[in-house]
Amino acid sequence: MVGLSGQMKLPEDLQTLQITELEELAAKIRRYMIQTVANNGGHLAPNLGVVELALALHSTFQSPRDRIIWDVGHQSYPHKLLTGRWERFHTLRRYRGLSGFPKPAESVHDPFGTGHSSTSISAALGLALARDHCGDTYKVIAVIGDGALTGGMALEALNHAGHLQTDLMVVLNDNEMSIGSNVGAMSAYLGRIRSDPKYFRLKTEFEQKANRIPLVGKKIVDSAERLKGGLKYLVVPGMIFEELGLTYFGPIDGHNIAALKGTFRQASRMKGPVLIHILTEKGKGYSFAEASPERFHGIGPFDLENGLPRSKKTGPTYTEVFGQTMVRLAAENPKIVALTAAMTGGTGLSRFAEAYPQRFFDVGIAEQHAVGLAAALAAGGLQPVVAIYSTFLQRAYDQIVHDVCLQKLPVLFAVDRAGIVGEDGETHQGILDLSYLRSIPQMTLMAPRHEDELQHLLYTALHHASGPAALRYPRDKGEGVGLSEPRLLPWGKGELLREGGDLLIAAAGPCANAALEAAEKLSGEGVDAAVINARFIKPLDEELLLEWARRCGRVLTVEENSITGGFGSAVLELLARKNLALPVKLLGIKDRFVEQGPRALMLSLCGLDPEGIFQAALSFIAAKMTEGAS
Amino acid sequence: MVGLSGQMKLPEDLQTLQITELEELAAKIRRYMIQTVANNGGHLAPNLGVVELALALHSTFQSPRDRIIWDVGHQSYPHKLLTGRWERFHTLRRYRGLSGFPKPAESVHDPFGTGHSSTSISAALGLALARDHCGDTYKVIAVIGDGALTGGMALEALNHAGHLQTDLMVVLNDNEMSIGSNVGAMSAYLGRIRSDPKYFRLKTEFEQKANRIPLVGKKIVDSAERLKGGLKYLVVPGMIFEELGLTYFGPIDGHNIAALKGTFRQASRMKGPVLIHILTEKGKGYSFAEASPERFHGIGPFDLENGLPRSKKTGPTYTEVFGQTMVRLAAENPKIVALTAAMTGGTGLSRFAEAYPQRFFDVGIAEQHAVGLAAALAAGGLQPVVAIYSTFLQRAYDQIVHDVCLQKLPVLFAVDRAGIVGEDGETHQGILDLSYLRSIPQMTLMAPRHEDELQHLLYTALHHASGPAALRYPRDKGEGVGLSEPRLLPWGKGELLREGGDLLIAAAGPCANAALEAAEKLSGEGVDAAVINARFIKPLDEELLLEWARRCGRVLTVEENSITGGFGSAVLELLARKNLALPVKLLGIKDRFVEQGPRALMLSLCGLDPEGIFQAALSFIAAKMTEGAS
Repeated sequence: MVGLSGQMKLPEDLQTLQITELEELAAKIRRYMIQTVANNGGHLAPNLGVVELALALHSTFQSPRDRIIWDVGHQSYPHKLLTGRWERFHTLRRYRGLSGFPKPAESVHDPFGTGHSSTSISAALGLALARDHCGDTYKVIAVIGDGALTGGMALEALNHAGHLQTDLMVVLNDNEMSIGSNVGAMSAYLGRIRSDPKYFRLKTEFEQKANRIPLVGKKIVDSAERLKGGLKYLVVPGMIFEELGLTYFGPIDGHNIAALKGTFRQASRMKGPVLIHILTEKGKGYSFAEASPERFHGIGPFDLENGLPRSKKTGPTYTEVFGQTMVRLAAENPKIVALTAAMTGGTGLSRFAEAYPQRFFDVGIAEQHAVGLAAALAAGGLQPVVAIYSTFLQRAYDQIVHDVCLQKLPVLFAVDRAGIVGEDGETHQGILDLSYLRSIPQMTLMAPRHEDELQHLLYTALHHASGPAALRYPRDKGEGVGLSEPRLLPWGKGELLREGGDLLIAAAGPCANAALEAAEKLSGEGVDAAVINARFIKPLDEELLLEWARRCGRVLTVEENSITGGFGSAVLELLARKNLALPVKLLGIKDRFVEQGPRALMLSLCGLDPEGIFQAALSFIAAKMTEGAS
Repeated sequence: MVGLSGQMKLPEDLQTLQITELEELAAKIRRYMIQTVANNGGHLAPNLGVVELALALHSTFQSPRDRIIWDVGHQSYPHKLLTGRWERFHTLRRYRGLSGFPKPAESVHDPFGTGHSSTSISAALGLALARDHCGDTYKVIAVIGDGALTGGMALEALNHAGHLQTDLMVVLNDNEMSIGSNVGAMSAYLGRIRSDPKYFRLKTEFEQKANRIPLVGKKIVDSAERLKGGLKYLVVPGMIFEELGLTYFGPIDGHNIAALKGTFRQASRMKGPVLIHILTEKGKGYSFAEASPERFHGIGPFDLENGLPRSKKTGPTYTEVFGQTMVRLAAENPKIVALTAAMTGGTGLSRFAEAYPQRFFDVGIAEQHAVGLAAALAAGGLQPVVAIYSTFLQRAYDQIVHDVCLQKLPVLFAVDRAGIVGEDGETHQGILDLSYLRSIPQMTLMAPRHEDELQHLLYTALHHASGPAALRYPRDKGEGVGLSEPRLLPWGKGELLREGGDLLIAAAGPCANAALEAAEKLSGEGVDAAVINARFIKPLDEELLLEWARRCGRVLTVEENSITGGFGSAVLELLARKNLALPVKLLGIKDRFVEQGPRALMLSLCGLDPEGIFQAALSFIAAKMTEGAS
């Protein structure tokens, strides 16, 4: 792909381009993005949908003086290409490369980092209020998808923005599909606006009139505001937004750069918050993505010619085994229902959703409601399984505490993407769940060390079902151990993988396999290490851990989680409770956010591969304990 | 107060009562509630507002077969009185007495526990879906205030309920005031419905017509649904709810039992979700509460005759000192802004709000947005202080991680009600914040041991301002130490309160004072204990702690937080990191939810008073360490 930065200065020079030149640039951006994502993997369909939007924004407003915030941020590639990152774009999502999300550390054109959904209106409102406080006048623009708009945080912010009446622009990017299918009444409402030709026609005529007489335009809008009765609702389809205090424009064709620019200019003359409703097509400009926008939402490297994944299938992922086992167990137990928050495919529940449509609830991007709803389903006598990525489950922390655990309701959390997530980077790491879930009373916490154990623990948890429980597993293919018949495992019990007398290595999750490898290597150094697969992080298998801790005299804990408050911390608390003052070393993620990069590489950099565990064990044994027990 | 249960069987017999008899009962309930809250303290104004609503619900529906869920639940007193708890009501909010909130363990008439705001629609929808799954037909009713409706979780649930079209009733209790003042555009929207006589009159006429011909009524409603153009919006004021898929009834006089019952009967014949908008007056029936509903929202014991507090003022609370210091520091530093989520008075910010209206943001019940907004205010160059109770800050856990800490933005969290909260009980305890905040990278965590140190730490944190920080303090009066000029304290440094050689007691927050008392008492037993006031829970003052841990050879940690993942756990992690295998005992809240009761009593029951610490220290020293370091 030819470099662009040598030819023109971006984004400044966009202001001087004709519409046809912008359209040519759009085509160029599409080609570059498709090629790059084909190589690196990434979010393709959302970015193909907003090329014209990014061009219209950057050719109308003046970033970085004006602030543009991309909600979620997985649609920020065109924005990145237009703001000084064209040459580096081939490093997208690679270790030390460009992030797949907006990141202030990466560019002054990214005024606020995003990654999780539904934060952009709060962010834009905060920047706008800070601007007002400092007596400045720049524009603040939030771009949010129709899916993200159903997140509670976005609705809270919309309500507040309408109340405050600070100047602010919200571009509602209505692509008729959030990550999965449409969910929610708001989505249906937007659909009615889109589909009613009367609304569209009247609105368009009205806008054209207002546009023709620009100085009077504002007054016409004002008098329209004052119209009582039905007329207003015929003229202004976005009644909900108007009633909430935002001036509504739309719907606008989001692939028509001229229409977008015209609307942005008009909207930027308004006082108070404005909502611009644009219609875009996900995947636009790449036939395979247009045909399967969900498959091309987030995708690994693929073949440009046919859109098919490049990597060969190598055994099932943890996610897939979870999904298969759910379908199987639900056949035997009619009380099992499954919930997800806009991640049906991502959490492996597509087959469940097809097999049991009446027992499956995709609540949209609404993790708080998902968990509250699950609590009530459990209170109503069912056995809900809530599948949410570790990082997004953070959204529902209070509901886990207050609605589920306080009432000791049998909700099972399937915590997918727990641990290092790889290329999505900082915003998406699942490295806190052991810490934030472990401190909640009544919670049971489990981590299988391979996909077969995932089946057994899922079966065991649904069989036990006496209170809240969480099962965490990584974003990874399984260990290739093969799948047996799901069976009951003893509740609260760990598994001794290897006997030894010099050192106990206690590990949670698939780390236990790396620990076992490290132990084999240690035996070559004359160190005889016992290895325990914890299986249960809470409650700990006290008997097993204490027995081997006493035998070995020192303990190395290993986990794919922050060492602050995680599994190792639980082992320390156990030893303290039992008056056992032993040397303990905690291996896990240090107290920091972990950057993007391939999962295997990042695990190795964190010292969580067999070699890292081996080295940590050696230095632990060599270390002089500066003080013993009194 | 005369017992009622001897005279009639509640709630069943309510079905047989005439309206006038129900009105007499309403007066009786009001007298009993006013008297009880005057004695015990509690939420008065919200309960006085819903007496007729509770009577109308229980005389129309059949609890416990039909499920009624009270959002937040601080307005559940009339419901409790009508469902078998009349005799025990004098124990309200006392240790082992009736809870101030609905609690399934207390009664079959409480199908789902509440306490935190905005959960009821999720809960009702979950119960309704479980009902449908089981082929049952009972009614499910959520009662939610206009304040709670602005919480993101409620909006997520409304969106989902409108989508699913399951039978469900939402009673919107519009008392024209959430806990503080009206916040948000939704509130303004409800205000327009209330104030427009045309809307009211038309709607009422329409309803009366529909009511007169009950069998045809449904059809009229249906044809109204199909009306296009303006008429619908004249006839149906609750257009937003209608567009979201809920059938709207209202507004109805919430103190008119007959009108309420009529509407409930009509609404219960509808298919799909229904929203009934009722208007009530907080504090109704007690002149002092009518005049000052905010003061009587949650109140301590008071004098029936004049409505004045019974307890004499004994020095400022931590909350008050926080508020005063904020006003003072803001005068010198124009970048300081303050945020709260519907708790202006509760967090001590009333004076700040008056003094700096342009620098104060009450976002309503919307903790997620509050924290996201604060992050952006910080990104915009300001110094936001977010004052939220420990228990409610749980709602914003993800925003603290993703929006604040990941971007290392200088947001200061004033974590009020941290630790044991007393009479509000399980749902409101602030015993998890040290655990859930400590594991977030980039976060600094502070706890003052008295109100003067609160001033200094607040000043120090706002001066330092290099990243996210949290300051936690209890719901209590101060220690009576007097207030000095706010001054800088060394960042990340603790305070040695007492030297000693036998045992180090390391404490966080006001526990340090109890620890010091315990140490004095221990010296009488020949135990010479050093005492450290940690001040900083993260980062720990490693130097100070390690020095005295080495000198003493054993460490007792004390905190008003769960010992799972809290301050003591941090000390264990530090010792492990430094290869120091010492006996450590953690004193704090055990891994459980703590019930209601006076704060002092509960602290004592948790072993966190001087006597408890003294006893714990003695037994710790006496305990034989079963194993030492290798």
